[in-house]
Amino acid sequence: MPQKVRIALDAMGGDVGASVVIPGAAIALSRHPETEFLLVGDRAQIEAQLAKHPAMKAASQVIHTDVAVSNKDKPSQALRRTRRTSSMWLAIDAVKKGEADVVVSAGNTGALMAMGRLNLHTLPGIDRPAIAGVWPTLRGDSVVLDLGATIGGDAHHLVALAVMGSAMASVLFDRERPTVGLLNIGVEEIKGHEEIREAAELLRAMNLPQLDYIGFIEGDGIGKGAADVIVTEGFSGNIALKAAEGTARQMSELLRAAMARTWRSKIGYLFAKDAFRELRDKLDPSKSNGGVLLGLNGVVVKSHGGTDAEGFAYAVEWGYEMVHYDLLTKINQMLNRDGGALSASITQEAVS
Amino acid sequence: MPQKVRIALDAMGGDVGASVVIPGAAIALSRHPETEFLLVGDRAQIEAQLAKHPAMKAASQVIHTDVAVSNKDKPSQALRRTRRTSSMWLAIDAVKKGEADVVVSAGNTGALMAMGRLNLHTLPGIDRPAIAGVWPTLRGDSVVLDLGATIGGDAHHLVALAVMGSAMASVLFDRERPTVGLLNIGVEEIKGHEEIREAAELLRAMNLPQLDYIGFIEGDGIGKGAADVIVTEGFSGNIALKAAEGTARQMSELLRAAMARTWRSKIGYLFAKDAFRELRDKLDPSKSNGGVLLGLNGVVVKSHGGTDAEGFAYAVEWGYEMVHYDLLTKINQMLNRDGGALSASITQEAVS
Repeated sequence: MPQKVRIALDAMGGDVGASVVIPGAAIALSRHPETEFLLVGDRAQIEAQLAKHPAMKAASQVIHTDVAVSNKDKPSQALRRTRRTSSMWLAIDAVKKGEADVVVSAGNTGALMAMGRLNLHTLPGIDRPAIAGVWPTLRGDSVVLDLGATIGGDAHHLVALAVMGSAMASVLFDRERPTVGLLNIGVEEIKGHEEIREAAELLRAMNLPQLDYIGFIEGDGIGKGAADVIVTEGFSGNIALKAAEGTARQMSELLRAAMARTWRSKIGYLFAKDAFRELRDKLDPSKSNGGVLLGLNGVVVKSHGGTDAEGFAYAVEWGYEMVHYDLLTKINQMLNRDGGALSASITQEAVS
Repeated sequence: MPQKVRIALDAMGGDVGASVVIPGAAIALSRHPETEFLLVGDRAQIEAQLAKHPAMKAASQVIHTDVAVSNKDKPSQALRRTRRTSSMWLAIDAVKKGEADVVVSAGNTGALMAMGRLNLHTLPGIDRPAIAGVWPTLRGDSVVLDLGATIGGDAHHLVALAVMGSAMASVLFDRERPTVGLLNIGVEEIKGHEEIREAAELLRAMNLPQLDYIGFIEGDGIGKGAADVIVTEGFSGNIALKAAEGTARQMSELLRAAMARTWRSKIGYLFAKDAFRELRDKLDPSKSNGGVLLGLNGVVVKSHGGTDAEGFAYAVEWGYEMVHYDLLTKINQMLNRDGGALSASITQEAVS
């Protein structure tokens, strides 16, 4: 467990860059003073912000570059144009060189994945990275992955997701043996893709001490908090996430419209304002802001591009927690235990 | 357009059977008096209900059977045990024999699909059926399919879904050229499964007069009402539906808890009660109850098993609308126009 957590920030990432990134990091720093920052980006913009946040200034070093990845760049374009030069690349590179423990970027997701993979490489036994998010549920938070990094994947891939997601849940939620469910559809005779059934058999057979596989979970089980970790390949994970976000937004808009319609409802709103604020806080997207790229040889946190400083602070604090509680070591231990959870699963696949 | 709409009801379907089915049908009948019913199931139970609903009694014939499909039956079991004898089978059979125009069942979904397919067969050019649902959005209702009948499928299957969903939207929403979107994930470089891109190309190239293909839609576009028809294969469709349902339930519970917490919020609730009722009505699951099995040689409506009489009435009225506006003929016309939309797409696939 490191004494200080060293966080590299892509200061140019996100819709507005330094003017959200640095105030956001300042909030995180006030909650976790044992943090140091490496701020990568345009020195003039960074220093203008640091002037307003003296504590940040004292805790930060600046690495200057005037190259930034655009949100419009395709990953291939971003790589061609800004590899080795952009704030995103250099922030990732700081993790690779051991100068930082974690990198946080609100920049282009595709570019972040491509650069993360190219520069940090995947962990032994992991072919393709995943994006894991924290999903607020009725029972607390759950880790859901993959939210869209990798489309499709065999049983082996799903088992790897289960292992990495469990490590993240045990780190973030302080749970010794998180429960894990595989996302599936419920109708009896169409039990879902073959690979999901295979992954279920593997997880049951492996009976890992670090995770408790509890079976299939339907889409409505996520919001119920049916498991600490919900595993699915990236296409359906992304569809589930966006469908849930869309519904939440839809309900908020309907509620707002309904509360504004009559004088009675307006008075009701005034009385119940605190209750509404509480509800909003509970569903605040900034609190479950972004995702973690899992499967790389380094911790990479993706913040939403459109977040505010408070939201960016949450992303920074995720990064902090995952370094502080040593996520990567946990994942590697799980992958390598007893000759490796995943190689065990490969062997089982070969014999079955 | 038939004068009378003749509806076959599986009177034993659903969690409680006749005591929801017949009161529900009675509600639908009061709104659409030009309806006749064929009630299939246990005569004693049916007549006990008809005694309470004289208008229903006058509009109904009873077909007796004491065999019912159980909700626990796998489709294969249901077929083996109750083919040719169960209320579900006989209600479907009435459509096949031309004694009814549509069948409505709140019974076991898997069994209904299996029996529908076996007895009615799929339409020419359609390999596998789909379940289409009506999704309440911020902009009105949208048709979303497939909600879980068929897992996976090639570009040709997705185009067939687009055609059938458009026919349903034009019938239900009275739209001449409904907009159609393909559900996909948004990140630039991972544009989704190959077959989705292919389907997009086909739909664009075909440029059908009955539907307006507008492109990819992300999961949060459904709730926004981004298109009249949202097309996806059954696995992600089911995940999207259930994730949205789960989120809606989660938000309702959080709201209820927040409103009950303090005396201020309780007073607020009293004032805003009408607004909450309005919101609840708008999101009332009974209004978007169940789904329509598309792709069969007959119209089959599936109501939720746990619905109440009001919810079942909506399912019956869907059936009514689809017969009244001649859904099947519309679908067949679209499938066969210019030599058939689908055979055109097959040819294109072969040459591309």
